[in-house]
Amino acid sequence: MTDETPSRRTVRVELGPRSYDILIGSGLLAEAGREIAALLPKARLLIVADERVDDLHGAALRASLDRAGIGHATMRLPSGEPTKSFPHFEAVVDRILEERLERGDAVLAFGGGVIGDLAGFAAGVARRGMRFVQVPTSLLAQVDSSVGGKTGINSPRGKNLVGVFHQPALVLADTDVLETLSAREFAAGYAEVVKYGLIDRPDFFHWLEAKRGAIFAGGPERAEAIAASCQAKAEVVAGDEREDGNRALLNLGHTFGHALESVARYDAERLVHGEAVSIGMALAHRYSVRQGLCPGQDAERAVAHLRAAGLPTRIQEIPGSGFTLDALMSKIAQDKKVVRGALTFILTRGIGQSFVANNVDPAEITRFLEAELAA
Amino acid sequence: MTDETPSRRTVRVELGPRSYDILIGSGLLAEAGREIAALLPKARLLIVADERVDDLHGAALRASLDRAGIGHATMRLPSGEPTKSFPHFEAVVDRILEERLERGDAVLAFGGGVIGDLAGFAAGVARRGMRFVQVPTSLLAQVDSSVGGKTGINSPRGKNLVGVFHQPALVLADTDVLETLSAREFAAGYAEVVKYGLIDRPDFFHWLEAKRGAIFAGGPERAEAIAASCQAKAEVVAGDEREDGNRALLNLGHTFGHALESVARYDAERLVHGEAVSIGMALAHRYSVRQGLCPGQDAERAVAHLRAAGLPTRIQEIPGSGFTLDALMSKIAQDKKVVRGALTFILTRGIGQSFVANNVDPAEITRFLEAELAA
Ligand SMILES: NC(=O)c1ccc[n+]([C@@H]2O[C@H](COP(=O)([O-])OP(=O)(O)OC[C@H]3O[C@@H](n4cnc5c(N)ncnc54)[C@H](O)[C@@H]3O)[C@@H](O)[C@H]2O)c1
Ligand SMILES: NC(=O)c1ccc[n+]([C@@H]2O[C@H](COP(=O)([O-])OP(=O)(O)OC[C@H]3O[C@@H](n4cnc5c(N)ncnc54)[C@H](O)[C@@H]3O)[C@@H](O)[C@H]2O)c1
Ligand SMILES: [Zn+2]
Ligand SMILES: [Zn+2]
Repeated sequence: MTDETPSRRTVRVELGPRSYDILIGSGLLAEAGREIAALLPKARLLIVADERVDDLHGAALRASLDRAGIGHATMRLPSGEPTKSFPHFEAVVDRILEERLERGDAVLAFGGGVIGDLAGFAAGVARRGMRFVQVPTSLLAQVDSSVGGKTGINSPRGKNLVGVFHQPALVLADTDVLETLSAREFAAGYAEVVKYGLIDRPDFFHWLEAKRGAIFAGGPERAEAIAASCQAKAEVVAGDEREDGNRALLNLGHTFGHALESVARYDAERLVHGEAVSIGMALAHRYSVRQGLCPGQDAERAVAHLRAAGLPTRIQEIPGSGFTLDALMSKIAQDKKVVRGALTFILTRGIGQSFVANNVDPAEITRFLEAELAA
Repeated sequence: MTDETPSRRTVRVELGPRSYDILIGSGLLAEAGREIAALLPKARLLIVADERVDDLHGAALRASLDRAGIGHATMRLPSGEPTKSFPHFEAVVDRILEERLERGDAVLAFGGGVIGDLAGFAAGVARRGMRFVQVPTSLLAQVDSSVGGKTGINSPRGKNLVGVFHQPALVLADTDVLETLSAREFAAGYAEVVKYGLIDRPDFFHWLEAKRGAIFAGGPERAEAIAASCQAKAEVVAGDEREDGNRALLNLGHTFGHALESVARYDAERLVHGEAVSIGMALAHRYSVRQGLCPGQDAERAVAHLRAAGLPTRIQEIPGSGFTLDALMSKIAQDKKVVRGALTFILTRGIGQSFVANNVDPAEITRFLEAELAA
């Protein structure tokens, strides 16, 4: 499904009447106007923008929309996870209505996963559903959060607990905008790329081992890695749009990862999501080895690749304190994937051989984490 | 599809995997526990209740749930349209999460359309969609708002502008609880019953002419009228779940009606929704006569039936001032059913022969309303 032009790739997300294209490549921001006009003729746009991203790339986006004769307004929001909250959600919904956007118009999300999740949720509820275009600007958003239609905000009671499934009409992933992303955020997004290999694509993982340098340097391999990631996620989503079944595999590394993020109080100085996922995947592999499910050399190979990408793979690498056994276990038990006492984890039989384990014994996890923390 | 037991009727809303039953009849509140336990075994419930309704009927509902061993908590909210707003929406979502309801649990809406719309919206977004049971207690909610999955709240920028489509798992319409509804609210709900006849069911309209007294008195005809109304709405909804097409016919009387409600500032002392719809339907019929579309005697017959039910049919019957030509026309032009200058109205060729008219000339409507206001 990935086409073969080196500079531009298209991944189609097949969801019947809600199907859409993800365009990936260099120079896409300059072509945003043309692409949007072709898909949504006469639409007016409300751009919901991350302030930092808007400062860096907003002028290029608006120039492209102007050239295509597309009317637009911009709403700028602070960068960072706290923006994914009720007050900003209400403000975005209100702004959509204030701009008098109608059914034929669209909301455009311009930023990382925070903006995509927030703007998508607002678009999903304003007038009971407005069209929505994603222009993801972080690597994490390009390979993960902009694909699949999960939108939402955080509640004081937990992350991502409020939202809707609302598919975009179009996703435009310009690989050039990643040049201004910090090295740390790039590496964090790369953890999710590696995840697709580790879930069920051993060949992709091997290709990443060979091409990691080129991907970080920004060659055509970067667009290829992003397209392959979108393709992997699109296939899972197409098989399970509303997350009732095998979409759970996408949570590889995330049960541990969410517990770590929570103990770190979502302080991005200490730990960002992709770093938590990297540690979580390393833990899932080491736990699988300990349970006799996975050969030790496969776990070592997965961990070595994450380390080579500059990612943490041990709990002790997180700066600051609080990572006690009790704190971690209580967060793990609170996770929404807990069903009546038994824990659900994504475990693995080797590189690219992950599976959903529904009956994980909390006592085993406790002993494992005790050993990890002591090591 | 309506079964033939006089005391209990079931209407099925056919929406593929989102299909559900509406149970209608006497004594249903006492059986709520059994019905819910059969459909959602082990579910815990958060009852979102209209304060007034809860005072009158909450004990009966909870006793029934207790008998069935269903765990429940209750959140009481003030009666009245202002409850359908962002702050209450956030509070209900928060309460759902605080109660730690999970995917197998459910939110139960206990009240009129205000509570159903609000609780349904909150259920639609908490954990990206929780199960939801409607126990509508006003006639309007039993025949209209609890059927079809439209949920939402008002915005300072307009009514019902924020929400989602979220279908209930079950609707329980106990006709006994209507005994405590005020006569005025009962008549207002009856306007929507008449609407189904006037849209496309002339036989139902004739039956209503014959049975109005019994329906108001509370005989078995009441459950029959409610079931027939649900059936009518269910058929429209099944053909157009997301309101892209012929669902528009359900707006008979509503373009005029919304303008009247808005000019009356949604002050329930002056005008409630069903009354506005009654006047709106009368206006739609008289306008259709004036345009040579509808025989005069059909319009007179429709109006006579509404009047006999105690409903207003002329703008001048609304107490208070403000109903100027300018005020009404500016509200009509703001209505979301306006497409590029031309107005959309539901007009009619006679009793039960309504149709969507997309090209109504605003100048004609202006002249018509001028004559109405002068009459
Ligand atoms: N919806 C989903 O399926 C899904 C999946 C995974 C993650 N998420 C969500 O995504 C969020 C994380 O996304 P994220 O990592 O993109 O976070 P983010 O949106 O906070 O972006 C990370 C940082 O990078 C900056 N940034 C983004 N693009 C930039 C660019 N081109 N140049 C310079 N700076 C740039 C932002 O200002 C921000 O400071 C979380 O809230 C997570 O819950 C959602
Ligand atoms: N979702 C839809 O498809 C849809 C369709 C039509 C209307 N609506 C919405 O429904 C709302 C109107 O519904 P409503 O007329 O039921 O209003 P409501 O919920 O305000 O109820 C009307 C009044 O009746 C009282 N009441 C309700 N049941 C009672 C009972 N059994 N005994 C005594 N008092 C009782 C309430 O306390 C309230 O004061 C509006 O917000 C409207 O937008 C939604
Ligand atoms: Zn992730
Ligand atoms: Zn109505």
